[in-house]
Order: sequence, then structure tokens, then C-alpha cells
Amino acid sequence: MRLAVVGATGEVGRMMTRVLEEQKVKPSLIKFFSSKRSAGTELTFMGKSYYSEELVESSFDDLYDYALFSAGADVSRRFSPIAADKGTTVIDNSSAFRLTKEIPLVVPEINGGLLENYHGIVANPNCSTIQMVLSLQQVNNLYGLRTIVVSTYQAVSGAGRKGIEELDRQEKGLVPEASVFTRQIYRNVLPQIGEILDNGFSTEEMKMVLETRKIFDDEDISIWPTTIRVPVEYGHSESLYVETRKPFILEDLKRVIAASENVVLKDDIITPLEISGSDMTFVSRLRSFDGKRFLMWNIADNIRVGAATNAVRILLRHALLNRLS
Amino acid sequence: MRLAVVGATGEVGRMMTRVLEEQKVKPSLIKFFSSKRSAGTELTFMGKSYYSEELVESSFDDLYDYALFSAGADVSRRFSPIAADKGTTVIDNSSAFRLTKEIPLVVPEINGGLLENYHGIVANPNCSTIQMVLSLQQVNNLYGLRTIVVSTYQAVSGAGRKGIEELDRQEKGLVPEASVFTRQIYRNVLPQIGEILDNGFSTEEMKMVLETRKIFDDEDISIWPTTIRVPVEYGHSESLYVETRKPFILEDLKRVIAASENVVLKDDIITPLEISGSDMTFVSRLRSFDGKRFLMWNIADNIRVGAATNAVRILLRHALLNRLS
Repeated sequence: MRLAVVGATGEVGRMMTRVLEEQKVKPSLIKFFSSKRSAGTELTFMGKSYYSEELVESSFDDLYDYALFSAGADVSRRFSPIAADKGTTVIDNSSAFRLTKEIPLVVPEINGGLLENYHGIVANPNCSTIQMVLSLQQVNNLYGLRTIVVSTYQAVSGAGRKGIEELDRQEKGLVPEASVFTRQIYRNVLPQIGEILDNGFSTEEMKMVLETRKIFDDEDISIWPTTIRVPVEYGHSESLYVETRKPFILEDLKRVIAASENVVLKDDIITPLEISGSDMTFVSRLRSFDGKRFLMWNIADNIRVGAATNAVRILLRHALLNRLS
Repeated sequence: MRLAVVGATGEVGRMMTRVLEEQKVKPSLIKFFSSKRSAGTELTFMGKSYYSEELVESSFDDLYDYALFSAGADVSRRFSPIAADKGTTVIDNSSAFRLTKEIPLVVPEINGGLLENYHGIVANPNCSTIQMVLSLQQVNNLYGLRTIVVSTYQAVSGAGRKGIEELDRQEKGLVPEASVFTRQIYRNVLPQIGEILDNGFSTEEMKMVLETRKIFDDEDISIWPTTIRVPVEYGHSESLYVETRKPFILEDLKRVIAASENVVLKDDIITPLEISGSDMTFVSRLRSFDGKRFLMWNIADNIRVGAATNAVRILLRHALLNRLS
């Protein structure tokens, strides 16, 4: 298996490399690409040193089986079609192609079947979307999802390494004004992630609406998101209210969620600090007044579950379904 | 007007004293009471020094017109009936009497009329409840509230001065384990405020359900709260989803909220850090997909609007309605 990692020196790119190691992926060739500015950065994979190379159009002449992209939407738009044209299956972590009709938007536990006999660009969903749909996968199958109201508590690492650095600097009193974030994030919470659109929703919120419907292949799910940045380093949290199409018994619902792939149901409360570094999505505080609607608290490592781990799971599932492993 | 402040050395008690000054309340007599441990603490009111006295049963022999209580439910249960028996109108910030049928639970802008010809104990609602009902007061009047889903982002000062101190100590790396809070709050968020009850909801969440229904005098409002602690010093934030009984046009809804007493509607985003110290409740990010349900971001200073300011507003409204001012 021949692999390329694009955006290899970023927060998600580095984690993709680590998850590839952890998942014991053993490529015959692996190359790491970055911007010109970060080219030459030393990276290790399986105990061996590599140096990132500047991404250029000819980078894909080496005919990779897979290219994992995490270098932003502009880089994906320009370079991933070049890779795909040469027969490489691109797993793209950016928002560039997520809502393109012909491009599968994949969370393998839910719609991994789309990868069978598929070659080209595969889109990796937004971090907040992935952990939400993972927790609701079997609820959707068994009860149907009518309405989801979700409020997020998103870690600064969602804005990359520079997000964590900005929180650090503000904590030390070094930065008078915000720059990565629109307001001070230290000892504050910000009710905006991405741009605010004409309909009053933010780009991050509309990702949750549109991506969730595409992943579940159901345009009738009514989704009401509010995405908020909080001063946490790693781990997105979500407060969820879900109205199902069929009524449920709470004990059954607990079993259904606990049995969902890569989801852990906890009786005790659980916080982002505790789950940082895990590849599982954690659900706790599951409760209901009426057996028609329920509340839950959902957390996952945004860099792993919300980005790198899902991308590597797409690679593994694709390889398995297409006998490339 | 003769005034007593009980719990005068605490975070809310001190703020009550400051709000009394700001509102130009000029008592003929004012006394400050505290626990034995804090007795003798120097306090200033209108430029004059006072020393807190230990609260004892005979403390109310001075026949106060009003006693502002903020010393916890146990102190309120024991001492406020003694004060009330002597003809003092008690404004109690604790949860002790909020759900007692005969005791009015008052947000003056909404149900201040209950104070007319009333003498005895008046309950001040929970901080998270006050700012939510303030923002929704006119929405309830004009459209009716069917369902409220609320997720909170609550400041550490909600746990008093010791909550802020715990965040400070954890930031400095001084405390290995949590004590005021059940988990580390520094660079974390905690999905529990109060105790978790048998129904899976926390005491804080059930306060929001039961107090909101009592204040609006409507048992049919369906309320689904999730209360979360965040590492912010002052200012509670709330992400609200509201389903109204009658449909609305978004522009009308904006005007209705903007015209609500002591509520400010902002076009731009707004954060708790910016509104700390204000007596107003701020609404922003008002938006809807369908004219039947809407989302909004609601913030207020939890020590002022959520406690001290509402208590002083109760005092002023009571004095006005009963010609004691």
C-alpha cells in the first residue's frame, strides 16, 4: 500500500500519522507533504525519520493508493482532483467536497458501504458532525430521528495548533487582542465558529445540518445547532436533545446506544479532559421525561474521532471492501 | 426603610449591597449579618464602614422592613420565618422556598404584581432561570411557549468566591484534585451542577424546569435543560431552542425581544466576558429555519441579574406597590 499524507505537519496531519501507526498500517511507501513554509520538517513514522516535502502538482506522480488530505479546503480543491485522476483514493478532511453530490461523505460505522467499488475523493465530515452521528447511528436505525437540537462546547484545537497557542498566550496575559478567535477565549466562551451567514446560522452550524442529513441519507431530519467555542484544549462536547419518530423505553435506548460501534455509554458523568486521546465517542447523562424525546451529553477527541481516526477508518474500510489491505 | 442583609460577606451578599447603593436605596437603618466565622468583617455602604454581625435568632428584633437573604438554604429555612414573623419582608436568594406553593417566586418584570399587598417571604429564582425567563417574557405573552431546550455555559462564580478560587488554583497548578467541583474545571467543562437525581436530571436542571413553570404560571411548558459548568469567572450563557404555540415572523420576534424590559437584543455576537458587571440580559444570534421554532444565545451576569439585582428589583417593586419607598 502506497500512502501520501498531505498537510502532514499540522495538528490533524500529525495525528493521522500517529493513528496509521497505531492501526498497524504498513505501507510499502509513505510520503509526507506540507506547504513550502513547513517543507523539510522532520516527522517520524514507525520509528523511522521522514522529511516533509512541498506539495506540488507532480507530487502525485508516485501513484499512491491513498492520500490523506488535511491542509484546508483551498489545497484540497486544487490538489485532490490531481491525485484522484492518477487513481489515488483521496480521503479529504476539508469541507471542500463534503456537500458535492457525487462525493461520498463517510463515517464508516454508518455508511461505509458507499466505499465498495468507489475510487476517487471521499470526504471526511466535520468534527462536530462525526461524533454526533456516531452516537445516534443505531437510534436512527431503530427509532428514526425527527429533530436534533445540539449545542456544542468545542475545544480550541479545532482551530489547529494556533488555537491552542492563542489560549496559552492569553492565559499568560501576552496578547491584548484576539486574532485566531474573534474574541478572547481565555475565561470566556464564543458563540461563533466560522462565519455567520445571511440566515443567521454559522458555517459550522450549517455543516452540522447538511452533513448529518447527507450521512444519514435523510433530508427530513430537522437539525438545530448552536456551535460554541470553549477554553478546552482537546475534546468537543455536545449537549443533545433528540426527538425520535417512534417512542422508546429509556432502558432500551441505553442498550441501543451502548451497542453502537465505537461508542461507549457511561453511567457517571464524563468530561473532555478525561477522554482526550481516545478513539471512542462517549455518551453520558442519557435521560428523558416522556419516552419520545431524550437528552444526552456526547464527547469525543475532536482531532482523533472528529478528524484523523475517522479518516484512517475510511482508509481501512475502503481497503477491506476493495481488497487492498 | 430599615434593611438587613444576611450572608453579607459572600459573593452575592456583597453584590446585593453594591446594587442597593447603585439603585440609590437610602435606608434609615442597615445591618449586615454573616456566619460566626465571618462576623466582624468590615463592609462599606454609601461610603460608611459597617461590621458584619453574627446571625442569631434575636437579629430580627430590630424590626426591619426588608431582609435580603443569601446565606444558603439551611440558613434561610431556619431564620427567614423568624424575620417574617416579625413583619419583615424577606427576599430569599436560596432554593429553600422557591417551590413552596404559598411563596411567590418573583422576577419583577414578569410577575411583580404578586408583590402587591404581600408580606412574608419572597423567593428569588435560580440564576439560570432568571436570565432565561427575562429573555422569553414577551415571547411567552405574545406567542406562548410550548417547548424550551436549554444548554447552559455557567460561570464558576455560581459556586461562590470559592468557585473562582478553585479555577485560579488549578490554573496555577496548585491543586491536584478537584474539591468545589466534581472534576477539574480548568480547561475543561463539567456536565453536572448540583446533584444528579433518580430521573437522571440534576438539581440545577430541575430548578430550571419547575421554577420556569411557576414564574410563567403555566404547567404545560415542556422544558429540557442541560446545565454545564465552564471555566468562565462571571456571566452565564445559555443556548436556547424555543418552540412557540403560535407561529412568528422573525423580524416581529426580534422587535418583541428587543422591547422586553431589561433585555438588550444584539445583532453582533456577544460573550460573557463583555457583559460582566451589567444589569441587563443580552440576547444575540436570534435565528430560525421555519417561523415555528427559534434559536438564540442568552447571557447575563449571574451574580447581578441572576441573584443580587433581581433581589433588589424585588425590594424596589415591593416598596413601590406597597408605598414603602
